[in-house]
Amino acid sequence: MSGGETSYEILEARFGQIGALGEAARVLTWDRSVNMPRKGAPGRAEQLASLRRVVHEKITDPAMPDLLDAAEEEVARDPWRGANLREMRRRWIHASALDADLIAAMARADSECEMAWRGAREADDYEAVKPCLRTVLELVRRAGEARAEALGCPLYDALMDVYEPGARTGRIDALFDDLAGFLPGFLDRVLQTQAGEPQPLPLDGPFSVEAQRSLSERLMVQLGFDFEAGRLDVSLHPFCSGVPGDIRVTTRYDTTDFTQSVMAVLHETGHALYNAGLPPEWRRQPVGSARGMAMHESQSLIVEMQACRSAEFIGFLAPLVRDAFDGAGPAWSADNLRRHYRRVARSLIRVDADEVTYPAHVILRYRLERELIGGGLSLDDLPGAWADGLEELLGIRPPDDASGCLQDIHWYSGTWGYFPTYALGALAAAQLFETALAARPGIPDALSRGDFTPLLGWLREAVHRKGSLPATTDDLLREATGIPLRTDSFRRHLERRYLSDR
Amino acid sequence: MSGGETSYEILEARFGQIGALGEAARVLTWDRSVNMPRKGAPGRAEQLASLRRVVHEKITDPAMPDLLDAAEEEVARDPWRGANLREMRRRWIHASALDADLIAAMARADSECEMAWRGAREADDYEAVKPCLRTVLELVRRAGEARAEALGCPLYDALMDVYEPGARTGRIDALFDDLAGFLPGFLDRVLQTQAGEPQPLPLDGPFSVEAQRSLSERLMVQLGFDFEAGRLDVSLHPFCSGVPGDIRVTTRYDTTDFTQSVMAVLHETGHALYNAGLPPEWRRQPVGSARGMAMHESQSLIVEMQACRSAEFIGFLAPLVRDAFDGAGPAWSADNLRRHYRRVARSLIRVDADEVTYPAHVILRYRLERELIGGGLSLDDLPGAWADGLEELLGIRPPDDASGCLQDIHWYSGTWGYFPTYALGALAAAQLFETALAARPGIPDALSRGDFTPLLGWLREAVHRKGSLPATTDDLLREATGIPLRTDSFRRHLERRYLSDR
Repeated sequence: MSGGETSYEILEARFGQIGALGEAARVLTWDRSVNMPRKGAPGRAEQLASLRRVVHEKITDPAMPDLLDAAEEEVARDPWRGANLREMRRRWIHASALDADLIAAMARADSECEMAWRGAREADDYEAVKPCLRTVLELVRRAGEARAEALGCPLYDALMDVYEPGARTGRIDALFDDLAGFLPGFLDRVLQTQAGEPQPLPLDGPFSVEAQRSLSERLMVQLGFDFEAGRLDVSLHPFCSGVPGDIRVTTRYDTTDFTQSVMAVLHETGHALYNAGLPPEWRRQPVGSARGMAMHESQSLIVEMQACRSAEFIGFLAPLVRDAFDGAGPAWSADNLRRHYRRVARSLIRVDADEVTYPAHVILRYRLERELIGGGLSLDDLPGAWADGLEELLGIRPPDDASGCLQDIHWYSGTWGYFPTYALGALAAAQLFETALAARPGIPDALSRGDFTPLLGWLREAVHRKGSLPATTDDLLREATGIPLRTDSFRRHLERRYLSDR
Repeated sequence: MSGGETSYEILEARFGQIGALGEAARVLTWDRSVNMPRKGAPGRAEQLASLRRVVHEKITDPAMPDLLDAAEEEVARDPWRGANLREMRRRWIHASALDADLIAAMARADSECEMAWRGAREADDYEAVKPCLRTVLELVRRAGEARAEALGCPLYDALMDVYEPGARTGRIDALFDDLAGFLPGFLDRVLQTQAGEPQPLPLDGPFSVEAQRSLSERLMVQLGFDFEAGRLDVSLHPFCSGVPGDIRVTTRYDTTDFTQSVMAVLHETGHALYNAGLPPEWRRQPVGSARGMAMHESQSLIVEMQACRSAEFIGFLAPLVRDAFDGAGPAWSADNLRRHYRRVARSLIRVDADEVTYPAHVILRYRLERELIGGGLSLDDLPGAWADGLEELLGIRPPDDASGCLQDIHWYSGTWGYFPTYALGALAAAQLFETALAARPGIPDALSRGDFTPLLGWLREAVHRKGSLPATTDDLLREATGIPLRTDSFRRHLERRYLSDR
């Protein structure tokens, strides 16, 4: 570095390099899910661990606290630089809360437990993975305590803060209790309504992978995805990764059912459009990142649930689907396709759940993981507590642990405090969409022509280009919608879609 | 790090991490050639530059010289650790010879010139890229001077040393002058012989990509490639990258001609087998790396040229090829396939050249780049010098610069001192194969059954498992064949194949 740089400039250069190393890790992680052969796993783990160690070393460099303090005054009157400094400090607080030994122990325990979980889920044997999970939980608790001390907040809040800056239990409780009070009664009404309606006619396959891929790519382009700046590939579970200029979306194809894969692609493309729309002038800087996982999920759900399951878009989609698979007859009508995409049911598996019952799955996990972290619930009692909780929220009990507390990878891979963001994202999506519709009343009409420009234009301005300029999801929503996160829009959305708009 | 470690142990831990970061860079580089969309290029350049900067920082850490010195005594009686320390020091010397500013300037100049070269080659416009190339050459010279000072050797030797440790101009001159004296007369005799023989019958396509891929994979398995520890993909130019446990081979398919792609795959699989066979207990350590680029090329050429173009293997290959493409008639006989794979011609393009004329292309580039680096030849005179040199060695002149001094990417991308390794590899391949045949006389018979086990077994022991335990290619060859690198085996090989074994 040459002399004469301000502390802030030094920090920007350092975080730019940290950002580039983070991007490298994203490519390696994508490759692991899409390309890596089985025997590459141990080597890849080393590569990723080394990258993480370097990033941790660089963030926790002894010069960092002084640089952060000295930069405060330099950026005092500049909102973007000020926000960037705030986000740098946040990363520094989180990174320096954990020592290298704890990080290494967590990486080992997470990866061992994740391996054990794969077998245990297969064999429906919770007891087999419980000892591993106990180790993971103990380490998560230790890490949470260290983060809580550094942040000055309760333990579980500190865990959530990793994924959702500023998330606090009090806020989440209020939102989730409200949903949990509303959903059971609402669900009864929806099921009753749907029982009185024609059942969806079956869509008969097989549906070739080639036809599904080609339809997916067509739809992605329609949404505004740029294939000169991204790809669509196949992985076991759909996800979106990559970096601006090189966004990587994945899906999986089932030749007996195209409906899941098409919606998964639309969902992941929502994530992709957020990543692609982040402020380019802040690339690789903390303030240039997505605001948090709740906002990220809101961007996938606004595309999948709000826009693409609307009657307008399904009207546009139905003929495309019919052409893609040479379909004919009433099963291929827009009405029937809409019935497929709006089917509601009490079901056991979160990732297969519809938009009405989905929040119940999240609320269950949120309640359980808080209790597990806090010590109020022991791992021995988890399967029973799961069944009781699901019964309370959805009125069904899992017949086994494989479709109960073994179904999700999160806890076993050390991801605690993440679940709430799924439901917060659904709430935020509804709230943003309602505001977008008020601001640009032409959106539904555009969607009926497959035109996402008005919606995407609004999202770019109100959400994507903001990066992490607002300090929290609530701050961002206040700027975009005038109010912090609430359940009202989501409830209105569900009522409209499942009780009126039939 | 806990206390009580020896200096050597500290070094091993550090180089282990450096090795893992190097592996990460290999995955990113592979991805750039195979997957990355166009607009990902600037971001990827940043990611790779950041990784290189971190590696450079870590190797040139101020504590390094003392650690290297203190470790000398600790490993004095241990050949592997001793060799590892020697290789660590080699890397440290090379890395610390260049300062960060020079490295950054080179990265920028190389990447700009490479971009300019793409357009210039397309437009056959050497003048358009000459200013860029001048900058690259000046920086290469500065870097070479710094390396030469650190290594205590002449400038051009220091450039070669990056790719081929211990390579010295005197040795190369002796080998190349010998070849340059032998080749023109030999080439005349071969062309005369082939003129009196039946011309190869054309193999008529089209040859589907799917059939070519499937044949390629079949052949790779036959050679000993493990698809649980590697992949075959498509890129503009065939190459082999990846790491043990995850070897990445690429090729390209031409639906009008399968012969090139099949041989490219066999060639790259030779590289792959070397990478896969490196000593696993020294993974990510300097001594666990391939000995140098000449040895690496020898492993691809021993597979492609020595084994796979042998009459025995082509006898095995012909029916597979026939089946793969539903061929019938005399064009699909082993005799005709062999004639295709042994066709010799005076030609302009190095990468398309046959094994007889290939060394002439390399010798031309070696002579020219030495003169350019030394200042005896100016870039203004390069096109003419190229034409004169090619005429002297092969008796033909390029009609334009696109098929002359613009054909190869190397100089324009800052790769100087690399070319000799291609021809050294061909010499080493012949020498190793001759020794392998003497040690395991069953090899030709095994090849006629498509069985590579005896050859691969010998190579594993004599070459792959040695990693960089021997200090130079000559040391490795002395251990494996009893003598340092010579031209004798290669000349015998050419005479046998192109004058007797018809």
